[in-house]
Parts: sequence; structure tokens; C-alpha cells
Amino acid sequence: MPAIKHRVKINVDLGEGYGNFKCGPDDELIPLIDHANIACGFHAGDPLIMQQTVRTCKQHNIAVGAHPGLPDIQGFGRREIKMTPEELTACIRYQVGALKAFLDAEGMVLHHVKPHGILYGMMYRDKETCRAVYEGVPKGITVFGLAGTLHEEVAKELGLPFVAEIYGDVKYNNDKTLVIDRRKKPWHPDEAKRHIQTQVENASVTAITGEELQLPIRDYHVSLCCHSDSPGAVDIVTVARQIVDEFNAKHFPQDT
Amino acid sequence: MPAIKHRVKINVDLGEGYGNFKCGPDDELIPLIDHANIACGFHAGDPLIMQQTVRTCKQHNIAVGAHPGLPDIQGFGRREIKMTPEELTACIRYQVGALKAFLDAEGMVLHHVKPHGILYGMMYRDKETCRAVYEGVPKGITVFGLAGTLHEEVAKELGLPFVAEIYGDVKYNNDKTLVIDRRKKPWHPDEAKRHIQTQVENASVTAITGEELQLPIRDYHVSLCCHSDSPGAVDIVTVARQIVDEFNAKHFPQDT
Amino acid sequence: MPAIKHRVKINVDLGEGYGNFKCGPDDELIPLIDHANIACGFHAGDPLIMQQTVRTCKQHNIAVGAHPGLPDIQGFGRREIKMTPEELTACIRYQVGALKAFLDAEGMVLHHVKPHGILYGMMYRDKETCRAVYEGVPKGITVFGLAGTLHEEVAKELGLPFVAEIYGDVKYNNDKTLVIDRRKKPWHPDEAKRHIQTQVENASVTAITGEELQLPIRDYHVSLCCHSDSPGAVDIVTVARQIVDEFNAKHFPQDT
Amino acid sequence: MPAIKHRVKINVDLGEGYGNFKCGPDDELIPLIDHANIACGFHAGDPLIMQQTVRTCKQHNIAVGAHPGLPDIQGFGRREIKMTPEELTACIRYQVGALKAFLDAEGMVLHHVKPHGILYGMMYRDKETCRAVYEGVPKGITVFGLAGTLHEEVAKELGLPFVAEIYGDVKYNNDKTLVIDRRKKPWHPDEAKRHIQTQVENASVTAITGEELQLPIRDYHVSLCCHSDSPGAVDIVTVARQIVDEFNAKHFPQDT
Repeated sequence: MPAIKHRVKINVDLGEGYGNFKCGPDDELIPLIDHANIACGFHAGDPLIMQQTVRTCKQHNIAVGAHPGLPDIQGFGRREIKMTPEELTACIRYQVGALKAFLDAEGMVLHHVKPHGILYGMMYRDKETCRAVYEGVPKGITVFGLAGTLHEEVAKELGLPFVAEIYGDVKYNNDKTLVIDRRKKPWHPDEAKRHIQTQVENASVTAITGEELQLPIRDYHVSLCCHSDSPGAVDIVTVARQIVDEFNAKHFPQDT
Repeated sequence: MPAIKHRVKINVDLGEGYGNFKCGPDDELIPLIDHANIACGFHAGDPLIMQQTVRTCKQHNIAVGAHPGLPDIQGFGRREIKMTPEELTACIRYQVGALKAFLDAEGMVLHHVKPHGILYGMMYRDKETCRAVYEGVPKGITVFGLAGTLHEEVAKELGLPFVAEIYGDVKYNNDKTLVIDRRKKPWHPDEAKRHIQTQVENASVTAITGEELQLPIRDYHVSLCCHSDSPGAVDIVTVARQIVDEFNAKHFPQDT
Repeated sequence: MPAIKHRVKINVDLGEGYGNFKCGPDDELIPLIDHANIACGFHAGDPLIMQQTVRTCKQHNIAVGAHPGLPDIQGFGRREIKMTPEELTACIRYQVGALKAFLDAEGMVLHHVKPHGILYGMMYRDKETCRAVYEGVPKGITVFGLAGTLHEEVAKELGLPFVAEIYGDVKYNNDKTLVIDRRKKPWHPDEAKRHIQTQVENASVTAITGEELQLPIRDYHVSLCCHSDSPGAVDIVTVARQIVDEFNAKHFPQDT
Repeated sequence: MPAIKHRVKINVDLGEGYGNFKCGPDDELIPLIDHANIACGFHAGDPLIMQQTVRTCKQHNIAVGAHPGLPDIQGFGRREIKMTPEELTACIRYQVGALKAFLDAEGMVLHHVKPHGILYGMMYRDKETCRAVYEGVPKGITVFGLAGTLHEEVAKELGLPFVAEIYGDVKYNNDKTLVIDRRKKPWHPDEAKRHIQTQVENASVTAITGEELQLPIRDYHVSLCCHSDSPGAVDIVTVARQIVDEFNAKHFPQDT
């Protein structure tokens, strides 16, 4: 029995352009993935981009989640901003509601919520922040987060379904948290492949400080996250798709 | 039988502050009105203000509508911006969805949608604009607008329920459209009273050019609009309440 | 010889509205003060407000300084944002340059630079932040800051002239730093008067924890800061003006 | 004697990214051009990008101008916004001042001002708009615009030096004005070459409606404009450089 107990899925942050500014190769990535996290206009995305991205996901039958961030397009949601818990809850509610309107218009359901960038990191470092964010998530909606951190703990406390994430194009600190950069750095293809492979096959990963880490995935469903703004995103996601498909075919041939 | 065929209601634009900036005396106005149009963050309002305004409206049992505007806080949604129809639809959908999230969280329903400021004016001057905005309104939701203009015509075409507005603190052009200023000007109390009284009692009003206008209200339900950023807003709405209450008591004593 | 060795001046943050949103009673405050700190559009202010505020200051012969803040109108520059030093320097340069353009157009000179809100606090807590901000100040321009903190130390290192501030409407922590709130709280008039009086006459102040603090003003010129968004701002500044005028008349009758 | 009476120069709009969003291949374009128009943060650009772009221009000894736009990053300054003349003047002053601060810090001078996008078009269609913008330009600074339009007329009235622009990657209406799109469309290389060649060699161009237009360049100095966000920008500017260099070598071999 592998360390991961269910078919692995792939999620990518999408719709992260702004006005005329393009971010990633969304149209090439969508056919390769299972879950889309769509930016909601605070760290990236705007109403028109959200509307178009939702429609493209619908055409490819992708499950769509909200990807709310800090209110900071200039910093792409990767600069820490100190907000009150009440403000944070309101910001999440606002963004998730905005995305839901586009899903409603297309007859789609909200599949999950996954906070963006530095907010995701602030949440596993500070429980009040984590709770404030999750209180903005509609009841019963799944949250994507890091197993073994406050993400998991608070989701449990608030009764929110939880999916454990592993990261295809982000490095790990030796406390099993993520190294969040303002701009994504390029990966060597072999390194990216190995990084993804050990996580999918063994739920383990090498920290930037060299330690081998065992990720506390336990029984959770798992979604592997990649970023559309990583240099070489299409190559990384293509490799991830192969690894995940092989893993799923080998261990969970019956499921879909 | 009066020119207006139903009990008249009062609506006010609320939640039009931004961050630390306060706009109108919302807490004093809410107990005086029937319908709140809550700003959705594009021309004014922010998530925290929306959340708080929705809660206050709930306490006073006020029906809440969305008040979407052009994306322009600096211009308070009162500077014309040329957007494509698709962009406009997406902007409305986004804002209405954001507000709906706060209503959902409080177990409240979305009562209506009323576009803000110059967008409202662009809609009665240009059919494509009007249709683009109304296409962003969720099916079955009532829109508030000016009877006898494209507002009414397009609402009918799209099958949206329509409530006719009359304006307590805005003057009329002689084509029965509104004079929309960047900043509201003060009214003399007697003038405001007369302005409201003739509209409520006779569905007529004096244009800024002096003509007496008959407003084409027909059989529509009517909501009298006042603005929280008008100088003397509380006084104006207090007078409006008296006039409306007397009118309702006299002509529709049985209804509620 | 008093603890403060020169005539005391008064400075107020001005032009902190945004679009239609008004902040403080600028027109009433300007005749009462010596130095204006004009917001530069990042935490408050916009080009039109800056232009008008500069002109009003010119009419009253007030020395004008730039009041740059963090890029956060919604948070009024009072939410901490983590930016890189290079970004901070660029943000200051940008804002000071923008204000300077309005001064140039009126034939006025830039008198000083005073950072706003939480940025001011971040600067006395972190040397790299302080240096980054001051590196955005044009050479030879005076900075206003807290004596005895990194403000003074870094100004000295970079060769920037320094004016020591005391605060008429802000409380002090017992480490002689300021208690920076998101929204200003009201003062009891007697308390405000005493707070200003002890600072002006003895360079001492009572901390929120009760200790009597001696402010390390030494030989610096001093400017007493008040805020236009404090409740009762005009009353506070009027009292400050009286106290300062009496102090100046008593100790420095010859100077101007 | 050619229709253009002086050496032709090339200008490109630069620094039009925003935060993490990149716009054009600035680093490849800068070595190919004479004049940079640097975005000032309203339609694109931010303080950090401005600072870096100014430094790169300095390294390549490029003359730098300000490229102010409407306050609309989401619309990239290509959506018309109705502003008052006073507001427009203030917006230009603000942006030019901000850019000047970065030039001052590098010991560089402001070479010119060239308004961006739809604002440029609004200026040749409406005299009040044109005058409002040019009144925000510091005295004595050259403006770049379309000869034979209000650009030229108002510059003359206000005593601002004028450089006539021709457009390498923008098509012309048959009234000699420009076709301004929200997003630049790709050019066929041969078509771009011919478009540039006839303008440089004969001051003539084919309108989108087919007419051959003679551009009223007269005695003005000329700068050929290309855009960094045009698909194939480097190829277009490379071709433009060749055509311009040949023209200059043939007709003005002595000048520099």
C-alpha cells in the first residue's frame, strides 16, 4: 500500500492575469489538470478573466475552486499584510462569493477553496489567521491545505472537509512548510521530476536544507499543486501528469 | 386613485465608505428605510464595510439589494468609463456575487440589484450598456430603475422584475432622466419636501429647466431613492418617510 | 533654559481625503499650523487633492513637506506590509517626486519629508526599513522623526537634517515609541492639553503604562504633530497652538 | 530634400509591466532606440519598475520621457474615462513628477512627455482635454504628438516644444488619427516594414480604409513610435532601426 491512500489529483492556480497582463499558459494547462484554483481579483484576476477562465474550465470539465488572496495585485499576494481577523474573513467571503457568481452563471458548483501565496503561509504559521480565513469559507466546502499544519487542525475544528496538498514546483523548509518566493524560479527538469516523484510515490521530499521529510498525508485525499507562473509550467505539469497517471494506474486502477 | 398604484417604499445607497473613510450616516438612515442598496467594492465599500452593513440591515429587517458600480473608487463611480459589454456583465456578476456571499452568511436573500451613479445613467442612454449590465443580474432578481427609459425596456426583454424609482434628492432633466453630479449638492428643506411630495402624490416633478414632468410610473411598484452622501441626508430621508407614510396610510391602509 | 532649545512648531498631516471622501477639516487647520505633511496618493490623497492642498498651504504661507505612506488606501497606511528595501526606496521617491511637481508648479520648495502611519513605526523598529525609506528622500531635505530612535540614527548616517517630533494626539509606549491605531480615538480635552503641555514645556510625557518619560530631544528643532483625522482635531490643534505660542513667547521672544 | 527634414529618432513605451506582470521585452528594445517613454504608474508601471527602467536607460544613454496615462491599470490606459480638466492636469503633474524623482536620483534630465493610449487619442479629438494635459507638463519640456492635430495646435498655444510622431506599429484612420486597440494585434513583417518605410521616406501612409495619406510633418523633428506590447516588438523595432538608420545616413550624414 503506498503512502498516499487515494488517487492523486493535480491542481493549478489559474486566471492569474490582470487586464492586458497575462500570467501563465492557462489554455495549455487546463487540459492537463483535475482542479483549478481561480484567482478572485485581489492578488490577480479580474471579472473578465474570471468569467473566461470559468468557461474554459467548464469546457474541459475541470472542478473549480476559489483562490482568494491578500488585496495586493502589485505584490501578487506575496507580500505579507497585517489585517484583522474580521477583515480577513470578509475578504475571503467577498472573493469566494465573486467567483461563485461566475460558477452560478455557468451552472457549475464551487468545488473547493484554496488561499493564495503568502496568505497560505501566514495561515500555517498563525492560528488566528487560519481561523479567520476558514471562517470566510462557505459551510461544507472543501479546503486545500498542508497536512500536519494549522491548515488541517483548523479545518477539523471548523468541520471543513480537507484535501492534503503536495507541491510540484515549490520547495520545502525542513519544518515541512513551503518556501514562498515573490517570483517563481526556474527548475531543472530532472530536479522537478524527482521532486514530484518522491512526493507522489512515497509522500516524502527533500528539504532545501537537505533533510528527507516524510509528509504527514495519512488518509487524506491528495492534490498536487503546480503554478501557472512557474517558468516552464507546461513542462512541469506534463511531467506531473505522467507521474500521477502512472501512480494512479498502478495503485488505484479501479477508481476514477 | 393616485398616480402611483402601490405602497411607496424608500431605498438608500449604503455602505459607501471605504476603509477608514466614512460616507454617510448609515446607522441613522437604516431605521428610516425599506430597501438598502449596498455598495459592492467597485465605486465604494470594501469587504469589511459590506459585512457590517449587511448585519446592520439584518437587525433592522431591511431588504438588501446589490449596488454595483464602475470600477473607480477615486471617482466614486461617477466618472464615465468606456467598457466592453462583456466586461460590464462580468463586473456586475462579480459585485453581486460578492454581496450575495455576505447575505448567504447571514441567511438573508438578495432582494434586488440597482446600478450606481453614472453607470445608471449610461444604461438609460445606451441600450447595449443596459443589456450588458442586466445580463450580469441573476435570473429572477428584481432591478430598480427609471420607468419609461431603457431600464424598463431591457428589464422587460430579459424577463427581470422591475421596480420604478423616483428620486428624493436628485433633480431631473426635462427628458425625465437624472442630473448626476460628482458630489451631491445641498437642498433647501422646503424644496426637497416639495420635490418628494409631488413625485409621491402625483408622480410628477419639476425639471431643472422648469417644465412639469409626468413620470411614466404606470402600474409599477415604486421605491423612492435617497443618497447617504447628500448633505442633510437624515433630514431628507426623515421628510421622505413622513410623506411616504402619509401617502401609504391614505391610499393603501390595508397593505403592508 | 527649557528642555526644548528652540521655538516649537506645529505640523499636521493634510490632504488625506480620497476622491469624494473627506478626511479632516483641513481648511480650518491650515491657519493654525507651521508645517503641512501632505499625503501623496499611496495611503490617502489623490492628484487633485494634492494640488488643492498645496495651493491652500501657499495662501497661508505654510511650509509643505511630503507625507509618503505604504501603498494601501483601504488600510490608510496603517496596516503593515512587508516590502523589500528597494521597493520601499522606490515608493518614497515616487511619492515625494509627485508632491514636488505640485510645489514646483506653485513656485514652492519641498520643506521636509515625514513618513506616514505604520511605516513611521516600522522605521523606528527596523533599521533596514528606516534606511530604505530615507534613501528615497532627496539629498539635503529635512526628515521629521522621533529623537532617540532609529529615525535619528539613520538620518545622521545618511546626512539628512533632522527635526524631532512630539505628538499632540498620539499616546506613547513606555519605550518612547508611539501607539499607532487604525482609527484615531477621541481625547478628553483636559487630557489632550496636559499631554501637549508636558511635552512642550518639559519634553516629558506619561506613557500608556503610567511611567513618566523624558523625551531625548537634546538640541533638535521640534515640531509638534497633530492629525487631521483625530476626533476633535480643530480643538486639539487650537489648544496646541496656544501652548506652543506661550512657550515660544516666554522662552524665544526674539526668534521667529 | 525628403519630406522629413531632420534625422528621425525612434521612441518606445517602456516600463509597462506591473508588479510581477511583465509587459514587453524592454531589455532587448532599449539598445535599439533613442527615446524611452516610461510609464508612470497610472496605466502601468510601478515605483520599482520605473526605478529599474530609468537605470537601464541611463546605462544605454537613452533620452527618457514621461509616459503618463489615465488612472486605469486594469484597462491599461486604453479605456476612455471622463475626467475634469483640473483632474487631468493634476494627474499629469503627479505622474511626471514621480518619474522626475527617479531621473533626479540618477542625475538625468526629463527629455519629453508623451501621453499614453486612449488619452493621447482623447487629446487630438478634444481641445479642452489636450490643454488640460499639456498644462500638467512642466514649462519648456518637449511634448511628443501628432502633427496637424490639436496636439500641435495646443502645444504651440502653450509654448511647449513639439516633436512630431509617426507610428511604426499602429494603423491610421483616414483623418490621419490612430486606431487605438485595447490589445495590440500582430503585424505581418512585410506589412510592418512597408508601413514604416513609407512614413520615414515620404511622410506618407496608407489608411485602414485604403487612402494614401500625406502626414503634415512640415519642419518638425520626428520620432517614430513603436510599442513594447506589440506582438513581435523586437522584430518591428529592429526593422524600424534599419530603415531609420539608412534614411538618416542618406539624408543627414553629418548630424548626430
